[in-house]
Amino acid sequence: MDTLVLERYAKRKNTNVKKIEIIPIPLTKDIKPHDPLNVLIFKAIKASQNKLVDNDILVIAHKIISKAEGRIVNLIDVEPSSESDKIAEENCKDARVIEIILNESKEIVRLSNGIIITETRHGFICANAGVDQSNVEDSFNNVLLLPIDADRSARNIRQFFKKRTGKRIAVIITDTFGRPFREGQTNVAIGVAGIEPIKSYIGLADMYGKQLRVTEIAAADEIASAAELAMGKSARVPAVIIRGYNYRSTEKKSQISKLIRPKTQDLFR
Amino acid sequence: MDTLVLERYAKRKNTNVKKIEIIPIPLTKDIKPHDPLNVLIFKAIKASQNKLVDNDILVIAHKIISKAEGRIVNLIDVEPSSESDKIAEENCKDARVIEIILNESKEIVRLSNGIIITETRHGFICANAGVDQSNVEDSFNNVLLLPIDADRSARNIRQFFKKRTGKRIAVIITDTFGRPFREGQTNVAIGVAGIEPIKSYIGLADMYGKQLRVTEIAAADEIASAAELAMGKSARVPAVIIRGYNYRSTEKKSQISKLIRPKTQDLFR
Repeated sequence: MDTLVLERYAKRKNTNVKKIEIIPIPLTKDIKPHDPLNVLIFKAIKASQNKLVDNDILVIAHKIISKAEGRIVNLIDVEPSSESDKIAEENCKDARVIEIILNESKEIVRLSNGIIITETRHGFICANAGVDQSNVEDSFNNVLLLPIDADRSARNIRQFFKKRTGKRIAVIITDTFGRPFREGQTNVAIGVAGIEPIKSYIGLADMYGKQLRVTEIAAADEIASAAELAMGKSARVPAVIIRGYNYRSTEKKSQISKLIRPKTQDLFR
Repeated sequence: MDTLVLERYAKRKNTNVKKIEIIPIPLTKDIKPHDPLNVLIFKAIKASQNKLVDNDILVIAHKIISKAEGRIVNLIDVEPSSESDKIAEENCKDARVIEIILNESKEIVRLSNGIIITETRHGFICANAGVDQSNVEDSFNNVLLLPIDADRSARNIRQFFKKRTGKRIAVIITDTFGRPFREGQTNVAIGVAGIEPIKSYIGLADMYGKQLRVTEIAAADEIASAAELAMGKSARVPAVIIRGYNYRSTEKKSQISKLIRPKTQDLFR
C-alpha cells in the first residue's frame, strides 16, 4: 500500500472517529395551513435547549411541511373519475382517495389486492402516491399530500435558518416508504438542501488499495432513517438535528432527483 | 381524544425526547480467519474510551464477521460450471466469481448487462449474492462471502459481551445493499440478536386517535443505516455503538427472516 493511500486512511479515520448525535426536536403545537413553520421549528429548537451549529442537518417529517403548505384535501370536495370508481370498487377503497392518488401520480406501477404503488409526479415510487390519512386532523374527511417541491421547501427552511442564526446547515425532508423484498418501512429523503444526497466513493481505494465495490451511498436516505429512530411514529417529534456527520455540503440547488433511478435503468419496473 | 391516548403520548414523548448517539469503534488491526473477533471488538471499545451500557446496540459490518469466520474463497480453487461459464461470458465477468455467486444463491432474480441480482440462501435479494471483492486481502484472488448464519454470529457476540461486561445489549450485523427505484446503496441488517428487527405500531393511534397508516418500521435496517454514517466505506470503522434508542429487546432468537418478505407476497419478484 503506498503512502498516499495510507495518508488518505489516516485522514478519513480522523474525520470518522467522532460521535454523531441524533437530537429530537419535539413540537408541542399541531401545525395548521399557513402556520409560520420556520419560526415554530426555530422556537422548538430553542425550547429543547439546543442551538444549531454549522454543518448540522435538520431533518423534518414531510407531514408538518405539507400541513403548513396547505397540502390537505377535503374528500367532500373530490369528484372521482370513472377510472377511480373502478379501481376503488375492485380494491375496496374510497374512490375519492383513489382519485387524489391518481392525480398525484405519473403512472401506476403495481395494483394488487388493495395495494396501489405509483410513481408520483416527483418520481418517487411509493404506496398511495404518499397520500396519507393518518396524523391529519379530521382524517375521516381530510387527506395529506406530499409537498409539491420538497427540495424548494427544504431550501426555504435552510435560508430562513441561515438568516436567523447565521449557521450554514443542511435540511432533509422525509417520508416513510415501504420497499420491495424487505418487510417494514424505512424513512427516506424526499427533499434536500445544502447536502449532496449521494456520497460517492467512485475512484477511491479500499483498505488494500483496490477500487471499492460500493461506490455510491444514499447518504440522505441513511440520514432520514437515522432521524426516524428519534421521531417515532405517533409522538410529536417531527424534527431532528443530526450533528457530527461528515457530509458533502453544497450551495447549489441539491436535487432529490439524484436519488431517483431513471425508469429505463431500473430492473424492477 | 381520550385520556388513555393522551397518556400514551406523554409516555412516548418522554421516551423519545432524548438524544441518540452513534459512536464509532475503530479497529486498527485487520481481521484474519480465526481471529478472536469478540475480544478484538471488546478491546477496540476500550481503546475508543467507551464502555458498553445496558440497551446499547452494537452494529458490526459483516465484513469483519465473514473474515473472522473464514468465509473467504480463493478463486484459484474454484472450478466454474458450464452455466457459470456461459453467464460470465455473456456479462464480461470472471466465471469463478459467478460460480461462487450461484453457490451462495437460491435463485437468480435479475440478470442484465453484467448486473446479477440473486436471492441468497438466507433469502436476501442483493447484487452478487453479497459476494465481495473489495476490502479483502489479495482481492485479485480472494473473495468474501456473507456469514452462513448472521443471526447466530450476532447471538454469539451478544453472549460474549453479556458474560464479559454483564451488560444486556443488542447486536446487528450489516451489509450495504442497492435497492430498486432509488440510486445509491444503504446499509441494512443481515443478522440480529436481542432486538426485534421490526418495530410494530399496529393497533396504536395517531396524534388524533386514528389508527396509524404506517404500522411497521424496519427498525434494524434504520439502525444499520444510522451506523453506516459513522462507518464510512474505506476507513477502519467496522463497528458502531448506537446508544439511547428505545427498541424492543428480546431474549428469544431474533430472526432476520422477519425482515424478509416472502416471494409470494412480493409485487416485484
